[in-house]
Amino acid sequence: MHTTLAEIFVSELFGTLILLLIGIGVVANELLPGTKGRGTGWMLIGWGWGFAVFTGVLVAFKSGAHLNPAVTIGIAVSGAPEYVPGIPVDTASTATYLSAQAIGAAAGALVAWLAYKPHYDLADSPRDILMTFCTDPDVRRTPWNFFSEALNTFVLVVVVLSVGPAGQASGLVKVDLGLLGALGVALLVTGIVLGLGGTTGCSINPTRDLMPRLVHAVLPIANKGSSRWDYAWVPVIGPVVGGILAGLVAPMLF
Amino acid sequence: MHTTLAEIFVSELFGTLILLLIGIGVVANELLPGTKGRGTGWMLIGWGWGFAVFTGVLVAFKSGAHLNPAVTIGIAVSGAPEYVPGIPVDTASTATYLSAQAIGAAAGALVAWLAYKPHYDLADSPRDILMTFCTDPDVRRTPWNFFSEALNTFVLVVVVLSVGPAGQASGLVKVDLGLLGALGVALLVTGIVLGLGGTTGCSINPTRDLMPRLVHAVLPIANKGSSRWDYAWVPVIGPVVGGILAGLVAPMLF
Amino acid sequence: MHTTLAEIFVSELFGTLILLLIGIGVVANELLPGTKGRGTGWMLIGWGWGFAVFTGVLVAFKSGAHLNPAVTIGIAVSGAPEYVPGIPVDTASTATYLSAQAIGAAAGALVAWLAYKPHYDLADSPRDILMTFCTDPDVRRTPWNFFSEALNTFVLVVVVLSVGPAGQASGLVKVDLGLLGALGVALLVTGIVLGLGGTTGCSINPTRDLMPRLVHAVLPIANKGSSRWDYAWVPVIGPVVGGILAGLVAPMLF
Amino acid sequence: MHTTLAEIFVSELFGTLILLLIGIGVVANELLPGTKGRGTGWMLIGWGWGFAVFTGVLVAFKSGAHLNPAVTIGIAVSGAPEYVPGIPVDTASTATYLSAQAIGAAAGALVAWLAYKPHYDLADSPRDILMTFCTDPDVRRTPWNFFSEALNTFVLVVVVLSVGPAGQASGLVKVDLGLLGALGVALLVTGIVLGLGGTTGCSINPTRDLMPRLVHAVLPIANKGSSRWDYAWVPVIGPVVGGILAGLVAPMLF
Repeated sequence: MHTTLAEIFVSELFGTLILLLIGIGVVANELLPGTKGRGTGWMLIGWGWGFAVFTGVLVAFKSGAHLNPAVTIGIAVSGAPEYVPGIPVDTASTATYLSAQAIGAAAGALVAWLAYKPHYDLADSPRDILMTFCTDPDVRRTPWNFFSEALNTFVLVVVVLSVGPAGQASGLVKVDLGLLGALGVALLVTGIVLGLGGTTGCSINPTRDLMPRLVHAVLPIANKGSSRWDYAWVPVIGPVVGGILAGLVAPMLF
Repeated sequence: MHTTLAEIFVSELFGTLILLLIGIGVVANELLPGTKGRGTGWMLIGWGWGFAVFTGVLVAFKSGAHLNPAVTIGIAVSGAPEYVPGIPVDTASTATYLSAQAIGAAAGALVAWLAYKPHYDLADSPRDILMTFCTDPDVRRTPWNFFSEALNTFVLVVVVLSVGPAGQASGLVKVDLGLLGALGVALLVTGIVLGLGGTTGCSINPTRDLMPRLVHAVLPIANKGSSRWDYAWVPVIGPVVGGILAGLVAPMLF
Repeated sequence: MHTTLAEIFVSELFGTLILLLIGIGVVANELLPGTKGRGTGWMLIGWGWGFAVFTGVLVAFKSGAHLNPAVTIGIAVSGAPEYVPGIPVDTASTATYLSAQAIGAAAGALVAWLAYKPHYDLADSPRDILMTFCTDPDVRRTPWNFFSEALNTFVLVVVVLSVGPAGQASGLVKVDLGLLGALGVALLVTGIVLGLGGTTGCSINPTRDLMPRLVHAVLPIANKGSSRWDYAWVPVIGPVVGGILAGLVAPMLF
Repeated sequence: MHTTLAEIFVSELFGTLILLLIGIGVVANELLPGTKGRGTGWMLIGWGWGFAVFTGVLVAFKSGAHLNPAVTIGIAVSGAPEYVPGIPVDTASTATYLSAQAIGAAAGALVAWLAYKPHYDLADSPRDILMTFCTDPDVRRTPWNFFSEALNTFVLVVVVLSVGPAGQASGLVKVDLGLLGALGVALLVTGIVLGLGGTTGCSINPTRDLMPRLVHAVLPIANKGSSRWDYAWVPVIGPVVGGILAGLVAPMLF
């Protein structure tokens, strides 16, 4: 069973598309007028993004379902030899993952916007519209927001790395790459959103935040306001730093 | 272990009955007067339909637990040779699945109405009564509603197909046909409802919407209003289109 | 590994005690003054009773974790030869299950009352106090309440029987008797409570309702009112009828 | 595969840090001003602490993931010969577990405070600030509060012990030490919090309550009030007593 870079590309792109489609859909359902779920609250956001991860991971098993540059970078930094069997960690494979994730995230944001088009047409709060696409803290204090994003992503990636190769090599953890593994990552993300996402809204994924913000900037949405590019680097660089730290720390811990 | 078409028929009918009984019960619990769960909100709908799927799948394992014409049609279109071992994909077997699902859905709607009879007798909102039986968008824009239904069903069926035969053939996914598989489909449905169901209310199943609407039209319910047949084709044709597209796309993706 | 009737007795008693302790605790948390969870809503009831089942099943694995006379009777009626390996279905074993369940349910109700004693001392709604112990419909129409209890219990027991021996004998279902099995039954109960419990409050277990009602009648609780014995037969006979029907139907279905 | 005491120390410290980081984060998200999840309610607390346990257990598999002195003491009292293969139950290993848990809990509280720093700076309710760190009952009646903490911890530890070595030795329970085991303990904790945590807020872990209270006393938090040391012994001694009782009772029950 040889996996090719083309298959990695399709798998990551489609998985990230599904992740963003459902994830942005969840926030649109919470914030836009006339939706069935408007005002449900933070449990909808936490569970909804967990299920978005669950679904995205299920369709992206061929590429190991990173769906997140912080995970890809964390694995690379950790010294792992391969992303999946037959795909060595090198510039070509890393670029394949990152570009597929970026395209998939943009496509997912676009399709989610189409899915909720009648509700975007009714929306009149520029900030709510923006927050369906990307994160924005209610208390803007950039150094602390940055710390939150780095910390939350560190937790995500260090757990993924520990339960993954490290845990399995130790023989103490048995991970099913199918439903149970997808469920595990989903619950991990839900837990981080519920416990640590109350500050910035929890990007924990550079592409999940940046590409939909770009889509927001480009799309002709009525009543949309600023895409807040001054904040955009925080949920990008923060998660990258968190992922790198996790990749460095995980091999020491486990 | 030979499975017969008669067993397929009983299994699909009973599974779809249970799916609709619990699923319609969930919406009745949310919307009807005097219920314990009235006004709980969208988490009740999302989780409740997930559990309805979970329970229906558990009792319909003999037929592979489609419970949804969009799944049956998606599998047929994907080129799979058999629905379950010993049951080839042909006109007779497909007709068996579709007719069992239709009868089961009608029967489930009828029993759910009986279960909540004292509360239907108290209900005075025609639209709430209708929405316990079938979906109705709060923002009626037919082309976009149609797109939502097709898209949401596409996501459902493409994941079911990818984790099913395709994923398993690749050797990367291990699926337990029992509790874990039922849980996986349940969580997938809950995720789609939470993330993408905020628009139309999420039929994603032609029979789930059409047969209860028919039951609504026929039953002598006090204060019931129109069954809104002008909208009825959307949650039927939309899911069929989504299922067909998923059946065509899945073999290319995986 | 010989299981004795004494072990069955201890296992069922302790499992049912844990089931009622957590389950009654959930309703006390929802309804009594000064609790952390007061007024959380129906999701607390549905998930809470599911977790009560999860925990009770985990500690009662030696006896197969019935924790419910409707399950015991359903298995007996279905023609199964043994409750667990080495324990034939006969009068002595059935009486052991039923008596252990009754004593465990009473003990669980007593301990739950002690756990929430400061809050019972503050309570001034007789009906809320009663409803922490046992079920009471908001719309009292006895024949329909009876139908609800019988139907809901039928769903519970028919699924337990189908996924259990019948499903496993067919080779299509693989059930882990440990964590995954406990999780499956828990989610089944949560689903029934969310979808079908909106009418009567969902006893679906004769002992779960009758013994705490008896404890309510006996305990010296300030501001307690009637134990509503006129309704007490409904959540007892209804579940027994549902369990018997499930025991008769399951072997025909699967 | 030899596990050393140093590895136990690192594993237990990091696991308890993650447990407290997410757990305290959950309560901060619920109670502090300007958070995304403010006022979500008791479902956030119950699920959130469950996910905190899930995540902590996943990273602490090398030490068996106690993360709680009541579990460590319960295992020791139960007469088990080893904590994990190669680590006998003796003074040195027990001291390793307890000290790692204490340091991890303090570190987790500190990091959680940093994660929510902008929101602590806005907080003006001394009691809300305290309750993000440690438990405080809404109805203070010390003997009953003590009973609650001992009872709830007894349930936690007796289930952990029954499903663990005892259940597995019987051959009736199969426990996966990886994702499924972590999920099982998480759901057990969520169930206890939902059902029995409505009284005291549910410490069920001496170190989870004491060390964050100490951190609260030391940190320079604006508008912080008393650390309520008069109550502090209840959520410490109560859980220790509950854990000891569970360790004594479990071998008799199973």
